[in-house]
Amino acid sequence: MSHIVELIAVGTELLLGNIVNSDARMLSQGLSALGLNVYYHTVVGDNPDRLRQAVSIARERADIIITTGGLGPTCDDLTKNVLAQAFGKKLVFDSRSADRIRAYFERLHPSHPMTENNLQQAMLPEGCTIFDNDWGTAPACAFEADGTHVILLPGPPRECTALFRHRVVPYLQALSEGTILSHTLKIFGIGESALESMLREKMNTMENPTLAPYAKEGEVELRVTAKARTVAQAEALLAPVCEELRALLGKKVYGMDVDNLETVVLDLLKRAGKSLGTAESCTGGLIAKRMTDLPGASQVFHGGIISYADQVKANVLQVPQALLDRYGAVSEPVAAAMAEGARQALGVDLAVSVTGVAGPDPDDRGNEVGLVYIALAQESGTQVELRHFGALRSRTRTAAASHALNMVRLAILQGEGSGFHFQ
Amino acid sequence: MSHIVELIAVGTELLLGNIVNSDARMLSQGLSALGLNVYYHTVVGDNPDRLRQAVSIARERADIIITTGGLGPTCDDLTKNVLAQAFGKKLVFDSRSADRIRAYFERLHPSHPMTENNLQQAMLPEGCTIFDNDWGTAPACAFEADGTHVILLPGPPRECTALFRHRVVPYLQALSEGTILSHTLKIFGIGESALESMLREKMNTMENPTLAPYAKEGEVELRVTAKARTVAQAEALLAPVCEELRALLGKKVYGMDVDNLETVVLDLLKRAGKSLGTAESCTGGLIAKRMTDLPGASQVFHGGIISYADQVKANVLQVPQALLDRYGAVSEPVAAAMAEGARQALGVDLAVSVTGVAGPDPDDRGNEVGLVYIALAQESGTQVELRHFGALRSRTRTAAASHALNMVRLAILQGEGSGFHFQ
Repeated sequence: MSHIVELIAVGTELLLGNIVNSDARMLSQGLSALGLNVYYHTVVGDNPDRLRQAVSIARERADIIITTGGLGPTCDDLTKNVLAQAFGKKLVFDSRSADRIRAYFERLHPSHPMTENNLQQAMLPEGCTIFDNDWGTAPACAFEADGTHVILLPGPPRECTALFRHRVVPYLQALSEGTILSHTLKIFGIGESALESMLREKMNTMENPTLAPYAKEGEVELRVTAKARTVAQAEALLAPVCEELRALLGKKVYGMDVDNLETVVLDLLKRAGKSLGTAESCTGGLIAKRMTDLPGASQVFHGGIISYADQVKANVLQVPQALLDRYGAVSEPVAAAMAEGARQALGVDLAVSVTGVAGPDPDDRGNEVGLVYIALAQESGTQVELRHFGALRSRTRTAAASHALNMVRLAILQGEGSGFHFQ
Repeated sequence: MSHIVELIAVGTELLLGNIVNSDARMLSQGLSALGLNVYYHTVVGDNPDRLRQAVSIARERADIIITTGGLGPTCDDLTKNVLAQAFGKKLVFDSRSADRIRAYFERLHPSHPMTENNLQQAMLPEGCTIFDNDWGTAPACAFEADGTHVILLPGPPRECTALFRHRVVPYLQALSEGTILSHTLKIFGIGESALESMLREKMNTMENPTLAPYAKEGEVELRVTAKARTVAQAEALLAPVCEELRALLGKKVYGMDVDNLETVVLDLLKRAGKSLGTAESCTGGLIAKRMTDLPGASQVFHGGIISYADQVKANVLQVPQALLDRYGAVSEPVAAAMAEGARQALGVDLAVSVTGVAGPDPDDRGNEVGLVYIALAQESGTQVELRHFGALRSRTRTAAASHALNMVRLAILQGEGSGFHFQ
C-alpha cells in the first residue's frame, strides 16, 4: 500500500512571516527518502477551529498526517487537544513523561523550579506511541485511528529534526512493509538537464532502485532509492547501481551522502596533510566563509586575502603592477599571480584565487558580468580556468566559489594518483 | 471589509524538500505589514487535479488567493491554466508581454535564440491586471472573479519578492478601503525581550499606529503600522511615533526600511568618502562576504585578510609574535594589532578585526566558545570590545560579524559629529 502524507504546521508566527517553515522542508526530505509521497503542506495559525477544519480536509486526502508545533505549554496544547478530539481519543496523564519533563527542567534550570503548567505536556492521547524527547520538554507521539496515522511533533526545528530522525523514521519504516533506503550522489560539473539526458533511459526503465536527480545551487544531487524486505537487501540493491553511476560520472561525483563540497575538501586536505589558502576578488570572502563554516577547518585552512581593490592585489598578494596594467584585474595572468601570491603570503600548500565580474556592470575593459577566472597554485605549478556563470551576482559568486573548491578537490585527488575517491 | 488571504505554493520541489517555502514567509511578512490576515498556507505539487482541489478549498475560506510558482514554460503554465479555468477565465495572448519576454532573452542570452515555448508565458487570463516582470520572464498578474481576488506570482524568490514589493503591494493597497502603511525600524544592540519590556505599555495602549517587534538573527525589527484614508494621512500618523522611538532608542536604531546593517555601512562609507578593510579570524571572511554581497561595494571596500592561522596574523597582518606568545590569538592586544595591521596592509581608512572562539571547543588558553574580541582601527586610534555570543558556532559568527559592522557604523557617525543618522 502506498501511503500519502500531509504535513500540518500549526503556528501564527508562520502566518505572520516571522519564521520560515523549515520543518516542512526537513520532513519532506526525510519522508521522500523513505519513499513516502507528500502531497500537501498546510499551515494554520494557533486557532482551534481552523486547525480542526484543516485536519478534516487532511484526513480525506492523506493516510498519514504529521503535525508540527502547538505542543508547548503556552499554547494550551492546541494541536494535541484538537487532534485527539478529531480522532475520538481521550488525553490521559503519562507519569513517565511527567518525570522526564521534571528532570529536563532540573537539568536546564537548576535554580528555577518548573511551573506546573509544563505538566500539561504529559497529557497524551490514550494508547499512543510516545516518542521520548531528549532535546526539549514536549514528548512527541503517534496514534492510529480509522486507518489514519497521526504523528505529533514539536515545532522548534532542532527538536523536530532530532525526534524525526531518531524516533519517527523507525516508526514509519515499521509501518511500511519492508524498508526503503536511499543514497545521494553529489555531483559537480554537469548540469541537471545534461545528467537527465545521459540517464533518461536508465531512469525510465529502472524500477527498484529508482533514480531521481535534483538541481541545487549549481550542483546536482542524484538520489538512488531501493525498497526491500531488510536494510541489508536494500543495500545490496543500491550498491551495484551506485557503483555503476560512479563509474559513469567519474570524478564529477564528489561524494555520497555528504553535506557539501567544502566538507569533502576539508576531509581531503586533512587526509593529504595539506594546507589551503585563498585569494578572492569577486567572491569577496565566500570561499573562506564556506570553509570556516565547518568545525575543524583551522587544522588545514590557514587564511585568505580578499583583494577587492587592485592596490591589495599589488601590495598584499604581490601581483606585479605591470600585469594589472597590461591585462587588467580580470585576466588569466592576474588570476595566476593572485594564487601564487596567496600561496607565498599565507605559507600554504595550495592556494585558490578568483577574479571576475560579479556585476551589476561589466568591468572597465568590457569583460561581461559573470566572467570569472579561477586559479589554483601548488608546488607543481599553477592552473587557470575561465568560466561564465551568467548575469546574476549571487549566482556568479556561489558558482565561482564552488568551482574553486572543486579545483582543490581535483588537485588533491590528482596528487594522490587516484581516479576515484568517495566519502 | 477585512480580507482573508490564502497562499498556495505550487511545486513538487517543495513537497520533496528540495527547497524551503521562503516565498510564503516573505509574502506573509509583507501582507501582515499591510494589515491583511493570512489564515492558511497550502503547498501542492505540479499536479493539476490536486491544485484544482486546493483552489476550490481556498476560495471557500479566503477572498484573496495568492499563488507562487508553476508559471514557467517547462511546467506547461500549470498554475495559470488551472486558476483561469477554476474562475471561468480564458487565456488570451498579450503581445506586449511577448515583446518583453523576447527582449529579456535577447539581453540575457544574446547568442541563444529564445525557444517559442517561452511565449506560452504571454498567455494571460482575459481582463487581468498584468504585473510587468523586470526581474525574469514570466509576467505576474491579478484578476477578480466572484468576489475573489486571485494573484499569480512566479516561484523564484528573487522575482517573487521584487514583483510583490513593486507591483502587488500597490495593487493590494488600492483594494483595501483606506491605506495601511508600515515603517520598520532596524535595531542593533538591544534584545527583543528588553525592547519589549521597554515598550510594553506603549504597545498595549497604542491602537493606531501599532507596534510589533520581531527578533531576527541577533537584531530586532520594530514595525510601526498605521491605517488611514490616504497614504499622506497614514504617514502623518507614523511620523511622530517613529521620531519618538528614534529618540528613545538613539543610535541603536541603525535605519528605517533598510535591508540590513551592511547596506547602511556601505552608504555611510560612501557618504563619508572612507574606505574599509577587514581582518577576520573566527568569522573567516563572513564580514567581507556580507559587504561584497552588495553591488557597488568595491567603491569603498578594499579587501580583507582572513588570518585563521597565527602565522598569517604574524606575517600578513604584522601582529608582533611577542603579543601572540604572551596573550594568545584571542586577546585584546592581538585584536587591536590585527585591525591596525589590516589598516596598514590594505591601505584603508577604517579596519575592523575579529578574533574569538567559534567552537566547537574552547581554545588552548581556556577561552570559552563564543568569546570574541572585536576591534576597530582608524586614524584617531583603535578601540576593542569584548563580547560573549553563546555556544552556537553559526550564531557566534553571525553576531560577531554584525557587531563589527555596527562598530564601523558608530565610528562613522561619531566622526560626523552626529548623534543621529537615518536612511
